[in-house]
Amino acid sequence: MAFSLDDLDARLAVRAAAPVGESYTAKLLSDGIERCARKFGEESVETIIAAISGDKAAVTAEAADVLYHLLVLLRASGVELSAVLGELERRTAQSGLAEKASRPK
Amino acid sequence: MAFSLDDLDARLAVRAAAPVGESYTAKLLSDGIERCARKFGEESVETIIAAISGDKAAVTAEAADVLYHLLVLLRASGVELSAVLGELERRTAQSGLAEKASRPK
Amino acid sequence: MAFSLDDLDARLAVRAAAPVGESYTAKLLSDGIERCARKFGEESVETIIAAISGDKAAVTAEAADVLYHLLVLLRASGVELSAVLGELERRTAQSGLAEKASRPK
Amino acid sequence: MAFSLDDLDARLAVRAAAPVGESYTAKLLSDGIERCARKFGEESVETIIAAISGDKAAVTAEAADVLYHLLVLLRASGVELSAVLGELERRTAQSGLAEKASRPK
Repeated sequence: MAFSLDDLDARLAVRAAAPVGESYTAKLLSDGIERCARKFGEESVETIIAAISGDKAAVTAEAADVLYHLLVLLRASGVELSAVLGELERRTAQSGLAEKASRPK
Repeated sequence: MAFSLDDLDARLAVRAAAPVGESYTAKLLSDGIERCARKFGEESVETIIAAISGDKAAVTAEAADVLYHLLVLLRASGVELSAVLGELERRTAQSGLAEKASRPK
Repeated sequence: MAFSLDDLDARLAVRAAAPVGESYTAKLLSDGIERCARKFGEESVETIIAAISGDKAAVTAEAADVLYHLLVLLRASGVELSAVLGELERRTAQSGLAEKASRPK
Repeated sequence: MAFSLDDLDARLAVRAAAPVGESYTAKLLSDGIERCARKFGEESVETIIAAISGDKAAVTAEAADVLYHLLVLLRASGVELSAVLGELERRTAQSGLAEKASRPK
């Protein structure tokens, strides 16, 4: 059974409950949502740069950072990962262009 | 069994193979990596704004957009999702602050 | 006398006072700060992509977009351009690395 | 006569020519365009967060960072600030919505 985003989120839940001095995740969350959002944004920028540079190893590492920091940001926002995955399941049950057209913007 | 990022990636693989006129995913990929990176960046910005605004419904919707466009960008970059999840599994097998310190930067 | 950011800001002030139906600037401002921030973010992403792609014409066009949307965002935030330029004058009156070290973070 | 972006660019030109160990600007430029783009992106994210948070002092400081790092990125890209300001002068000589419609996208 491959490692999943749910597995990562479960590990984050453990870390989030650790003392701030022992866990980077707990530290980020205690710093507040602005810092969590900033870290997520920085990793998004680095992923874009890696992708345009055509550096596959960097894309892999930066995409991992994006996923980690997105889960931290969801946690800081009080949003469950299952709600996000549920939204994706509903959207992609439809066909592609239809799905895009149906999104509220 | 809950919907996973792997499930989403499997749906994307089907879409990516569809004719461009029938699939938003196929259209994005045919437009090239710059457009894929741009869309990912836009959704990252919207996620940050939603999080700082404290709008949980918007965070859910925008985080879904981020995950979708990240998978498209990985595909455009020739990077497997399994490589990214494998990287996350390895990193988080260690303890939090140790993990951060061990990342090559 | 070359066109300056102050000149651009003066033109924006005129636009901002026009009816929403006649001015893109007035429309953006009436849409609220979230939309102004989103547009600024999108143009920042495009500037990064143009720079990494080494496309000088695109960098020129996107940097112009960034400056325009930054001035709109300042206006939406109630911050004067002169305050930002004054901050830059003070900082760069010092030497480079010293300046960086002195910034409150 | 108020401090202008041209004045800032002139100071940057002096810094860029200094030894790397004595100038943050020279160091950034020697690190290459990816690092310059990354720093610009980080400051853009921080400006967005400050604006949505409604923190005017932070918007002022972060907008100053954006302008500084945009000029560094232009320099790393081999693009003259005068070309960017000339583009803005041409665009805004037209009326607002007309200007937007005329942009090549």
